Amino acid sequence: MIILLGGTGYIGRAYQRFFERGGIPFRSLSRDEVDYTDPDRLAAGLRYFGATFVINAAGYTGKPNVDACEDHKADCLFGNAVVPGRIRLACETVGVPWGQVSSGCIYNGTRAGKAGFTEDDAPNFSFRHPPCSFYSGTKALGEEILADAAQCYIWRLRIPFNEVDESRNYLAKIMRYQRLVDATNSLSQLDEFVGATWQLWQLRAPFGIYNVTNPGAVQTRDIVGMIQRAGVCRKAFEFFADEAEFMRTAARTPRSNCLLDSSKLARAGVRMTGVHEALETALRKWSKEPVAEAALA
Amino acid sequence: MIILLGGTGYIGRAYQRFFERGGIPFRSLSRDEVDYTDPDRLAAGLRYFGATFVINAAGYTGKPNVDACEDHKADCLFGNAVVPGRIRLACETVGVPWGQVSSGCIYNGTRAGKAGFTEDDAPNFSFRHPPCSFYSGTKALGEEILADAAQCYIWRLRIPFNEVDESRNYLAKIMRYQRLVDATNSLSQLDEFVGATWQLWQLRAPFGIYNVTNPGAVQTRDIVGMIQRAGVCRKAFEFFADEAEFMRTAARTPRSNCLLDSSKLARAGVRMTGVHEALETALRKWSKEPVAEAALA
Repeated sequence: MIILLGGTGYIGRAYQRFFERGGIPFRSLSRDEVDYTDPDRLAAGLRYFGATFVINAAGYTGKPNVDACEDHKADCLFGNAVVPGRIRLACETVGVPWGQVSSGCIYNGTRAGKAGFTEDDAPNFSFRHPPCSFYSGTKALGEEILADAAQCYIWRLRIPFNEVDESRNYLAKIMRYQRLVDATNSLSQLDEFVGATWQLWQLRAPFGIYNVTNPGAVQTRDIVGMIQRAGVCRKAFEFFADEAEFMRTAARTPRSNCLLDSSKLARAGVRMTGVHEALETALRKWSKEPVAEAALA
Repeated sequence: MIILLGGTGYIGRAYQRFFERGGIPFRSLSRDEVDYTDPDRLAAGLRYFGATFVINAAGYTGKPNVDACEDHKADCLFGNAVVPGRIRLACETVGVPWGQVSSGCIYNGTRAGKAGFTEDDAPNFSFRHPPCSFYSGTKALGEEILADAAQCYIWRLRIPFNEVDESRNYLAKIMRYQRLVDATNSLSQLDEFVGATWQLWQLRAPFGIYNVTNPGAVQTRDIVGMIQRAGVCRKAFEFFADEAEFMRTAARTPRSNCLLDSSKLARAGVRMTGVHEALETALRKWSKEPVAEAALA
């Protein structure tokens, strides 16, 4: 039985849809059922349900954005660094393989020569490589706590989007923000991310870190162009003059904008659509397949 | 009622002795009685016992030394950074003033001109200023999580010692290590530390950070000389050639060696003995006043 932790969050709900559509038996454990932040209780739960694989899609993200993490540091640190360490302990105790949904937000910019960061590059937007947001710092610590974990995947998601209009979707955010920062980023189409992570396990790809992003990079201004051409939002988009103006007037903590190299994923045999095509597809289908979110809660 | 958290640890037991000797009513709460890592339960406990002041002497230290924290990162991060944040939340909810036992191990070396670090200096041995041990990183994050906390003292302890021969006592460590690193440090005589922190609150000194160390600095070789002159240990002390040899042959993670400036404490009206005198006194009384530790557990 596949055990899903954090199943009611934005990422967790995508896993639920994926398993349901694929007819793959799974069980989403809520913290009320089994307090999975307690390694002993989680280990007992994993044994009770006969876990064969565990996915941790739980994490602490600020609402409405990463600035909120600056006011909830202890919760953020607990959810993003301590809890993964405790899940590791439980999974290692029971001897069950698992995957942690991590984040590419622990990098900023590109490698020398405008290349994307690989899994071998140390985070450069973390407590150990300041500046960073508190959120990114906790995510990098979370990966550090999972270093050398047994039978563990670390799947790095980066700015998720798909065709469903909801608050965590990057395309919805772009349409709703008053002003935008123009930056170049790697992105993850949410449902492709979920499928790719599952495929890694199905292929029994080696455990370890994988950047799970759609190949390519995209600028915010390009995405705005696509949105306008798709006709899904007719407002006049405004941009900050530069990141400095954004930081000065609208943000409390710096943002990660970065390129990730997803060739390790491809070498493992997992293909994801190019990022421009994935964006065009999402905008073409925009909001036409709303998900009954309450049914999945 | 004064509420003591972490009362069974090395620092917590010193608080228990201090309050008992002074006839000061207090209650040491164990995690079994009240899970003080849960802010709601702690807040309820503080209300139930009519807390007027809270002391958090709990923290995660590696056993037998700081290297062990590298293998227990999640626990270390939880105990030293998340838990202080949760105690802050509970104390702020109830509106009770409190003090956190922090550590000077978030610095290394001296300020320019061989002066000690003041409370205004940012930590320079932390995740944000690498290299550091994982332990020191979590301690610095703990202080960061308490920044701007309401009615909160942050009391920095630095390498505690007194006259009682037990494993956490720095003098006992020096006598037991096979080889020593010669370094210059500030130290805290444990019982003076406890008395000084209490005096800050009795004087209603402004809340905030205080370096609570005995004035002055001392080199490991000087302490060895004092031990030899006091006649409490007759072994031949050996030293590593330098810190590099120590790191290469005996340590997994770097150690903090640092000078702290305790003049803010003195300006608040709290006096501590000079560090050389405090060491001489401890060695003169060495082991002559054993404490019935079991009685305090």
